[in-house]
Amino acid sequence: MLECVTFTSLPREDSIIQKADALANEALDSKLPAFPVEKHPGAFVKPIGFVSSPYKVQADAPRQGRLDPIESTIEIYPEFEAGLAGLMDYSQLFILSWFDRSSRDQLWVVRPGRGSARGVFATRSPNRPNPIGLTLVDLLEIRGRILRVRGLDALDNTPILDIKPYHQDIDTHN
Amino acid sequence: MLECVTFTSLPREDSIIQKADALANEALDSKLPAFPVEKHPGAFVKPIGFVSSPYKVQADAPRQGRLDPIESTIEIYPEFEAGLAGLMDYSQLFILSWFDRSSRDQLWVVRPGRGSARGVFATRSPNRPNPIGLTLVDLLEIRGRILRVRGLDALDNTPILDIKPYHQDIDTHN
Repeated sequence: MLECVTFTSLPREDSIIQKADALANEALDSKLPAFPVEKHPGAFVKPIGFVSSPYKVQADAPRQGRLDPIESTIEIYPEFEAGLAGLMDYSQLFILSWFDRSSRDQLWVVRPGRGSARGVFATRSPNRPNPIGLTLVDLLEIRGRILRVRGLDALDNTPILDIKPYHQDIDTHN
Repeated sequence: MLECVTFTSLPREDSIIQKADALANEALDSKLPAFPVEKHPGAFVKPIGFVSSPYKVQADAPRQGRLDPIESTIEIYPEFEAGLAGLMDYSQLFILSWFDRSSRDQLWVVRPGRGSARGVFATRSPNRPNPIGLTLVDLLEIRGRILRVRGLDALDNTPILDIKPYHQDIDTHN
């Protein structure tokens, strides 16, 4: 049930990495109760691809991509390309990205143009404990493992964690 | 820019953990280029809370929570409670969960009741490279750090990664 702790994108032949892996997994195996005290130890997310966008720095990006429908591309890594089969059946997708330039320790957010602070979970701020971005985009084209989309608010080089088809019946308030 | 690798939910006084931490961070500091070869090394996600649900095992859960509107509760860990301030202004929320009982190595999915296989990113299967669940729920009540919601398809004890308010204008196909 427990996730193995591995540093998957680091070179595996590196002995220091192998040693860290072995120690971490030994610790997980031997030290944690069957269901961990804090319920779950967390997990490692690995990008399935990355964004190429005209937004290079935070100041370029709109508050919400949906409101500034520029085009971006998403390049999926070769090992995940098979997962794209059938995606062209959908014209809207949810893109889950990893805001790798965000702060993770903010629980209060002062929203642009409003005044008072509110809790981070009551906002769509990119600065959040797990900085996972959620954006509904229009799928324009897929060529091989390159998706062309409209409305993505992620910065250039942002890692992509997941792609999900949008379904009107389950994803809309009714 | 790089994430520090830490095993945050493990006991910090444990020397084997400290050693693994130190080795992993040394490796990240010294061995990776400023922007990694594979663009991004991935990152560690840490639950902000967990679900209590009548769905105990996979066979109990509906294909989509929205279509079987049972009530669940989400308990947020004390250190993230401040992030909930202002959340009661919203009646619909996106819940991002971590499907900790899913397989991460499936790229093809045979959908229930359909026949042919398709790529995992063209489905909402819980078995995906980064098994992050996305469910739109109705927020019924917040008492302290316990949220009562309707329509969550996550199993009992599923870790929660993030909560985002639903906004009609950016989250709906128009």
